[in-house]
Amino acid sequence: MKLYDLKAGLNPRRVRIFLAEKGLEIPRVESDLPRGDNKTPEFLRLNPLGKLPVLELDDGSVLTESVAICHYLESLHPEPNLCGRDALERAQIEMWDRRMEFDAAAHAIGAFVHLHPFWIGRETQVAAFGELSRDKLLQRMAWLNDELAEREFIAAGRYTLADITLQCALVMAKGIGIRIPEQHSNLARWFAAVTARPTARA
Amino acid sequence: MKLYDLKAGLNPRRVRIFLAEKGLEIPRVESDLPRGDNKTPEFLRLNPLGKLPVLELDDGSVLTESVAICHYLESLHPEPNLCGRDALERAQIEMWDRRMEFDAAAHAIGAFVHLHPFWIGRETQVAAFGELSRDKLLQRMAWLNDELAEREFIAAGRYTLADITLQCALVMAKGIGIRIPEQHSNLARWFAAVTARPTARA
Repeated sequence: MKLYDLKAGLNPRRVRIFLAEKGLEIPRVESDLPRGDNKTPEFLRLNPLGKLPVLELDDGSVLTESVAICHYLESLHPEPNLCGRDALERAQIEMWDRRMEFDAAAHAIGAFVHLHPFWIGRETQVAAFGELSRDKLLQRMAWLNDELAEREFIAAGRYTLADITLQCALVMAKGIGIRIPEQHSNLARWFAAVTARPTARA
Repeated sequence: MKLYDLKAGLNPRRVRIFLAEKGLEIPRVESDLPRGDNKTPEFLRLNPLGKLPVLELDDGSVLTESVAICHYLESLHPEPNLCGRDALERAQIEMWDRRMEFDAAAHAIGAFVHLHPFWIGRETQVAAFGELSRDKLLQRMAWLNDELAEREFIAAGRYTLADITLQCALVMAKGIGIRIPEQHSNLARWFAAVTARPTARA
């Protein structure tokens, strides 16, 4: 297997932390977005959408989409379990993982793409949408702070893919200056704990 | 089980078509968004995010998020298979399903929420973002037209959850006046085929 990676990307980081939690090492090819590595004909043959990460399997077939990659890796390497031990737990973790995608990560990405100078000339930026995304992320932080009042992790009573997704969303948010407001002490406690894991630097 | 449903919603429709393809009937509670059914204290206890669909299980526990619900239903009712028969096929269908979510459905929803009068007073609308979403959806239609040049379905050589997701995205798009451009005959042929299935009216 070979992983096409992007150091700063939210979704590539999800897969890297997932691999580190599993104790897996996969050869990686680092992409340079400003150099246009994801727009070369070779890369577009792997993923016509030009997105990262991409997992190339030994038979040459290709998987994209971080969650599809993580679920596939979990099927090959079930322990430690990060996506659920039975159908209902898998569904509950997937529910929470998707909430973390659509109600946290998507807003962090919206703020990054529409407000950050990196994207000038790369994406059509709509500043008002970036600000709306930032505001929604802050609203969702308040909700998550309530959710975490009486539990240690996002789902299933242990560290799972849903924690990884929120962690990566809040790392991106922090990188663009959207920090957890001081009054949200439960969320801040959770964030300090997950980012203190040895795998957080993967 | 009980399904909290929303007739016009993109994600509730995904679950309804999925159920119909499986030949399953689950009692449904129809929600009325203008009446605020999804903002009542009772509903927010089921889903604090106020979103539909919601599947209430017989033990009172709750699943939200259409894809988590579909994967769970597939584990209980494996046939006809809509999400993959082994780990690799599951990953490939999930990859395609997520592409249909992030590169089609998300743009249709962006255009709907930010351009359609229904959302005035319900969501902060950013018209420029709605227009960007519409343009991106049209770009992705061109890509999908190429993808469908030599195959009948989106993934795995048969009708799967990935087809359902694109189908629901394009039904929403059509409802707000974004139609498949005439020159995209492969995509149009696919859309005519999937919407002619008896389950399309579910």
